[in-house]
Amino acid sequence: MTDTLKVLAISGSLRKDSYNTAALRAAREAAPADISIEFADLSRIPLYDQDQRDQEVPAAVARLAEQIKEADALLFATPEYNYSMSGVLKNAIDWVSRERPQPFAGKPAAIMSASMSLLGGVRAQYDLRRTMVALDMHCVNKPEVMISSAHQRFDAEGRLADETTREFIAKLVTALGDWTRQLQAGEKALSPQAR
Amino acid sequence: MTDTLKVLAISGSLRKDSYNTAALRAAREAAPADISIEFADLSRIPLYDQDQRDQEVPAAVARLAEQIKEADALLFATPEYNYSMSGVLKNAIDWVSRERPQPFAGKPAAIMSASMSLLGGVRAQYDLRRTMVALDMHCVNKPEVMISSAHQRFDAEGRLADETTREFIAKLVTALGDWTRQLQAGEKALSPQAR
Amino acid sequence: MTDTLKVLAISGSLRKDSYNTAALRAAREAAPADISIEFADLSRIPLYDQDQRDQEVPAAVARLAEQIKEADALLFATPEYNYSMSGVLKNAIDWVSRERPQPFAGKPAAIMSASMSLLGGVRAQYDLRRTMVALDMHCVNKPEVMISSAHQRFDAEGRLADETTREFIAKLVTALGDWTRQLQAGEKALSPQAR
Amino acid sequence: MTDTLKVLAISGSLRKDSYNTAALRAAREAAPADISIEFADLSRIPLYDQDQRDQEVPAAVARLAEQIKEADALLFATPEYNYSMSGVLKNAIDWVSRERPQPFAGKPAAIMSASMSLLGGVRAQYDLRRTMVALDMHCVNKPEVMISSAHQRFDAEGRLADETTREFIAKLVTALGDWTRQLQAGEKALSPQAR
Repeated sequence: MTDTLKVLAISGSLRKDSYNTAALRAAREAAPADISIEFADLSRIPLYDQDQRDQEVPAAVARLAEQIKEADALLFATPEYNYSMSGVLKNAIDWVSRERPQPFAGKPAAIMSASMSLLGGVRAQYDLRRTMVALDMHCVNKPEVMISSAHQRFDAEGRLADETTREFIAKLVTALGDWTRQLQAGEKALSPQAR
Repeated sequence: MTDTLKVLAISGSLRKDSYNTAALRAAREAAPADISIEFADLSRIPLYDQDQRDQEVPAAVARLAEQIKEADALLFATPEYNYSMSGVLKNAIDWVSRERPQPFAGKPAAIMSASMSLLGGVRAQYDLRRTMVALDMHCVNKPEVMISSAHQRFDAEGRLADETTREFIAKLVTALGDWTRQLQAGEKALSPQAR
Repeated sequence: MTDTLKVLAISGSLRKDSYNTAALRAAREAAPADISIEFADLSRIPLYDQDQRDQEVPAAVARLAEQIKEADALLFATPEYNYSMSGVLKNAIDWVSRERPQPFAGKPAAIMSASMSLLGGVRAQYDLRRTMVALDMHCVNKPEVMISSAHQRFDAEGRLADETTREFIAKLVTALGDWTRQLQAGEKALSPQAR
Repeated sequence: MTDTLKVLAISGSLRKDSYNTAALRAAREAAPADISIEFADLSRIPLYDQDQRDQEVPAAVARLAEQIKEADALLFATPEYNYSMSGVLKNAIDWVSRERPQPFAGKPAAIMSASMSLLGGVRAQYDLRRTMVALDMHCVNKPEVMISSAHQRFDAEGRLADETTREFIAKLVTALGDWTRQLQAGEKALSPQAR
């Protein structure tokens, strides 16, 4: 129970100064001592093509799948593009979901979204939640972190400059840790019981 | 751990010969010995009206809220009307969600849908899952039970006459029981730890 | 083309001081001279029950179906409850959608939502749009009117006190009128052509 | 009115033997004489990266945007991956939606989905419809073409071998043509009127 939880942070944006990636960095800083956050890299994942997959799973996909398998939990941050999650994120999920054992299965997760609009990317979050049902993941319910007017909440160096947002992000990371420990402890408590 | 789990079954259809209500009866019959299923009654719940609520919470709403609070878990069966859950179900949820403490909060849940179409009500399920995020519920991921061509799977007395469907329903009830016990055991294991 | 368009306004809230109903009143005031808006009444529609329908279609349902048939277009305003449209609105739609000919079929429509939250009811709008696919309606795309912090935008008498919101509502009503006339003119232009 | 309509077919799958691409070929064969269908190519579109876009819009994106601008209407076929449209399709949309004037704006469209499952990709269609609201497109309501058990409906050469499916596809293409002509005729009829 006192072990450190490993959380993999996955940003749906490849832009260097992405607000979503910046929100994940803020989450890493805000994380309690018993949660460590490392970052996935989606930039080298090709467009999903089953013909290519039949030849060979791309190295960037295999690497991401491995990171997911090793993680206790996942923390997503996605921009909202065209009222859904980014194609970049969806494409990475489409690749990894083909691996067996399916790497996402059973993983606890949490979602953030950051957007320059007033709605903070809310329209992307529920599609990602539905995708998590397909993937058999368990997503934290609350707090829901939708970072609106993101350009006003991060400074020019991409550092979070808004205390309210920092508190929400910290609460989400803590909630993800609690949820992960609850699921892990529950699984352990029930494991001797054969059904 | 060996205590019986109390599951409240909530049908989104008021029709006496409803396939969804029939699916819930089949779930009760298929439930393992350590799961007891009782039924909610949505038929006496009025249309939601905050003015009426400000006067008095209707007895049928208070009764439903009480049943939900007392339940370890909820099992929903909803028809798909106009590509979403029934208004009857949504209206009942809208009423109960106003009670404090909010009765649905933290409850494990599972969903079935039955429909005469080939799609089995799939379009209703994800709206209900999104509503569960608002309600802070934890919904079982798998199996997803969508009973297509329902008129061919139940007999004239409303008894399930299809073994494949019975197995899916039994698996869902078992999964709901396992999920509920996992969440309860995890909560118990972590409770001494102050955060 | 110079005829007045008849728009039926449907509020998903029964509360007397509903912000959504107030937004529809504001729409009526903001409407151009060639658009007349009348109001539907959902308060007497019972919970949908097919057994009851098999006996007799309730008068309030028949009345609503008639109003919809006579309307050139529909204007909905719905609260967001539990991340979807109100059960009250969904229930009314479920009843009317059973009438034949199906009253909603082919109707142009537009959506508003008002909420005290910062998100303005956005999560209710897309479920209603999906329901409109089932109903074969044609919904205006833009502007999307989500009235956030509604309690700050209407005065104690339920009159809209915010110019920006009034402009959005006026634009939506105008867009609904244009869209309705485009669909009607297009239908007329093509009607002599037999296929 | 007797002019040929130009429809751009966009498949969300890159696989050579894709059932979705095969469904689009079947649509081309089933199209009436006054509808011509050409195909988009998403295979050379990179992952969306705003930093790359700030340098230069990739040639494959510019080409796709140009094809969309020249088309009278769009016909999408998307696989359902992880309960939504493919990342490949979403990524292409994310790129093109940044071009100005926005190429999708005002375009009529229709959707098909093909899947080996019994649900035929239904869970992908409504996300794409919601994305079309963002893009200001006008999507045909009916028929909704969800090709279930796709591996049983196409032969080894990827030719459609199922008459019922062919009829649905033909109806959809005809409905897209009618819808496009209605919108165009309506726009033309109203254009002299200044507002």
